[in-house]
Amino acid sequence: MVVSHPLARLLTDGVLPAQCPSRVVLDHVTSKWGVLVLVALSEGSLRWGELRRVVDGISEKMLAQTLRVLVADGFVARDARPTIPPRVDYALTERGREVTARLLPLMDWITANAEAIVS
Amino acid sequence: MVVSHPLARLLTDGVLPAQCPSRVVLDHVTSKWGVLVLVALSEGSLRWGELRRVVDGISEKMLAQTLRVLVADGFVARDARPTIPPRVDYALTERGREVTARLLPLMDWITANAEAIVS
Repeated sequence: MVVSHPLARLLTDGVLPAQCPSRVVLDHVTSKWGVLVLVALSEGSLRWGELRRVVDGISEKMLAQTLRVLVADGFVARDARPTIPPRVDYALTERGREVTARLLPLMDWITANAEAIVS
Repeated sequence: MVVSHPLARLLTDGVLPAQCPSRVVLDHVTSKWGVLVLVALSEGSLRWGELRRVVDGISEKMLAQTLRVLVADGFVARDARPTIPPRVDYALTERGREVTARLLPLMDWITANAEAIVS
């Protein structure tokens, strides 16, 4: 049997062994707010206050925590300008664009089908 | 400006308003165990015990809860056979196959890149 697809191997052995790095990254990317922040940044960089407004319902604390994780994973870049008042922009990195490109078709499908599913 | 993509509209208005059905479905599909159960079923139907084994680390309670949500959303079909002992199979529905087809490229990317991200 030729296992060419990385996922095929993982399915054979179980879906992502509990201790593997993929579980950690999956949790970060698909966290309640992680998905929405990545999608929010998919059209371009946003400032803190813009993110707070666009990602409806996120608290200051959860936005800070979500951005910290996404920056640590290298999905989001933080750009602080020493202006008065200070200006901080958040943007997807190349890695962030790669993963978000794979989130958008999922979000698109969910958006188109959610009404029928929930009702 | 022509907004042809459903997500474009949502991005303009904010990423999925907090009360919209898409948030609910997104939470179900991207829940810690929801993703893994859907991916586990992507290659064919599985029995309860097989799911327990393939989705490494899931508890009886979490598997029951995850399957209940995925069945209620119409992503997974439960097929109970009146054999002795009773046999229960779980399989993706057409809707489940549609959403899982959009999860696999994401999982694939994460699997291929997780090591570099976490290290």
